[in-house]
Amino acid sequence: MKFNKVLKNVPLYEAGKPIELVTREYGISPKDVVKLASNENPYGTSPKVVKKIQDIAKDMFKYPDDSMYELKEALASKYEVESNNIVIGSGSDQILEFAIHAKCNKKSKVLMAKTTFAMYEIYAKQTGAEIIKTKSSQHNLKEFKKLYKKHNPDIIFLCIPNNPLGECLDKVEVYEFLESVDKDTLVIIDGAYMEYAAYKDINKKISPKDLINTFPNAIYLGTFSKAYALGGMRVGYGVANPEIIQNLYKLRAPFNITTLSLAAAIEALKDEEFVNDCIDKNFKQMKRFEKYCNDNNFEYIPSYTNFITILFKNFISKQVAQKLLERGMIIRDLTGYGLNAIRVTIGTTTQNTKFFKLLNEVLEELK
Amino acid sequence: MKFNKVLKNVPLYEAGKPIELVTREYGISPKDVVKLASNENPYGTSPKVVKKIQDIAKDMFKYPDDSMYELKEALASKYEVESNNIVIGSGSDQILEFAIHAKCNKKSKVLMAKTTFAMYEIYAKQTGAEIIKTKSSQHNLKEFKKLYKKHNPDIIFLCIPNNPLGECLDKVEVYEFLESVDKDTLVIIDGAYMEYAAYKDINKKISPKDLINTFPNAIYLGTFSKAYALGGMRVGYGVANPEIIQNLYKLRAPFNITTLSLAAAIEALKDEEFVNDCIDKNFKQMKRFEKYCNDNNFEYIPSYTNFITILFKNFISKQVAQKLLERGMIIRDLTGYGLNAIRVTIGTTTQNTKFFKLLNEVLEELK
Repeated sequence: MKFNKVLKNVPLYEAGKPIELVTREYGISPKDVVKLASNENPYGTSPKVVKKIQDIAKDMFKYPDDSMYELKEALASKYEVESNNIVIGSGSDQILEFAIHAKCNKKSKVLMAKTTFAMYEIYAKQTGAEIIKTKSSQHNLKEFKKLYKKHNPDIIFLCIPNNPLGECLDKVEVYEFLESVDKDTLVIIDGAYMEYAAYKDINKKISPKDLINTFPNAIYLGTFSKAYALGGMRVGYGVANPEIIQNLYKLRAPFNITTLSLAAAIEALKDEEFVNDCIDKNFKQMKRFEKYCNDNNFEYIPSYTNFITILFKNFISKQVAQKLLERGMIIRDLTGYGLNAIRVTIGTTTQNTKFFKLLNEVLEELK
Repeated sequence: MKFNKVLKNVPLYEAGKPIELVTREYGISPKDVVKLASNENPYGTSPKVVKKIQDIAKDMFKYPDDSMYELKEALASKYEVESNNIVIGSGSDQILEFAIHAKCNKKSKVLMAKTTFAMYEIYAKQTGAEIIKTKSSQHNLKEFKKLYKKHNPDIIFLCIPNNPLGECLDKVEVYEFLESVDKDTLVIIDGAYMEYAAYKDINKKISPKDLINTFPNAIYLGTFSKAYALGGMRVGYGVANPEIIQNLYKLRAPFNITTLSLAAAIEALKDEEFVNDCIDKNFKQMKRFEKYCNDNNFEYIPSYTNFITILFKNFISKQVAQKLLERGMIIRDLTGYGLNAIRVTIGTTTQNTKFFKLLNEVLEELK
């Protein structure tokens, strides 16, 4: 059977290996497997969210509120914007999908950093658009500027801070770059880890309201999957001017968010104390990773997120990741991104201690 | 800002009005509002599903299992097919979206009944495809055959039984029609209400396994939103040959189903007794609707689903629906589908008694 030709060039996204798979493949008991591969919040779900889910579980025979009235109001209030500035997706992923499919076709071009969130490229390829990447792995706005002028892309992606590397542009330099961008180019500011970056360094903080008021062609993406500890619930959002939101809505399927996910996100927004506490712990644990790297003379990228990227010279990252996996420690090998590096989620104290111990063992064996 | 031109022709889907909205607009207490507008299972969520959701709510900080191993195995076992015959979506809606976007572009044509599920047309318009419809509102395979030969469409939709009308083709006539269809045309058999039809009349039952073995160009869609009472959880699936499934997967975003939705669906599949009991009650209540229509000399379409369509001659359906709404009774007016009719979900004994009472009142007022 014939399908649209563009599909031939669409790669499949490789998710972090689930714990069950390691259990099945290596016979390690689930309780002994540690997953530091998907940048989940390791401190669990807010108890207030858990209670809310339990309270309304009996109502699941009813369809969700497709207007998403309450969650939109809550987000509008948090960001001091209007409801019509907001679109909610099954993860901020789905907002990427809406935006790319609304704007791109096979004549389009999209611009992104060489090493950034894999889904930008996958969604763009679904439309047949041409992918333009900087030479540098990390975001380099000089290269962005040059490529922007040369190619006049339909979409520019800025991942702030960047996944999977952890580096983060300053707000000032982002704004300066955006000044030079034509108003018909959609600029996607992916703030999936913004809560972490803003906590560590206020110069990184981008306010969605200020962004979209200053640049009508920008959209800000946020998620509940990271700092808000709801990776399993799939809720993200886009903040932009109504003209952009309305066009994205044309691609939104009805009921794209489950009732429980809507309720969990609303509840999570009420528990900012939990979120701040998790972020605070994250950066305390991050210091242990930095010390470990310094002590062992490993290069790492200073991170504004809840993960850290460690670059190897004398070891092969793929082998390191595999040997860790066999010991029940799941992390992310970045070979597929063209880097001899691993990306490790900052876990709890116990998880991190175990990681350091196992990595020592593995490196000793690979010497 | 410029967006893809096709978006201009994409209409927005109008969901059934939520109870909260009626409360806000007409000041009726939520407990006094009855919603018979979205064909939800009125007997609530299976207690086993509720317990499962409550048990795992604390794990929501972790991403879902993107392989969906367990739910796929459960569905494969139910339908006696393999895991690679299955794709899971956020409602069967999302499988429609995958299939249409995988197959169609602005040169494509799609064929459907005049009055059928609104999303077929909306998704098709997102790709710029041309919509071909039969003259008859209900599925008429003679007309389908004629239009198929004339237009050679890329996709044919058969909604079996049909929403929003409730009629249902026999398996034998569907198969006879499919014999005449070219193997490069994708035939989508939408079985969202199949559990009801198969229970009422075994001649309506289409087995996904037999269907896809006989017609490699067919895909069967099922959902957990209706008989399985999980409308709020958004889980549906497609069963087809691996070549089709693989192409649909190219458009699936990672983690498109939440952890709780996966678990709820798995649990719901284990509780077939609950489902059968709900379907049995549904058809007992359906008899009351038929009697009501006969007693009042209203025409209705014999229904193989959990809703019934009532056609008016001496009343205007839009006025009837509005007056019912003002009394806290939400049903669906079919004016937008070109019919002077209403679609009413078969509710519980109490809900239905209230519906008959309020409809009598309203019709008396409109006389």
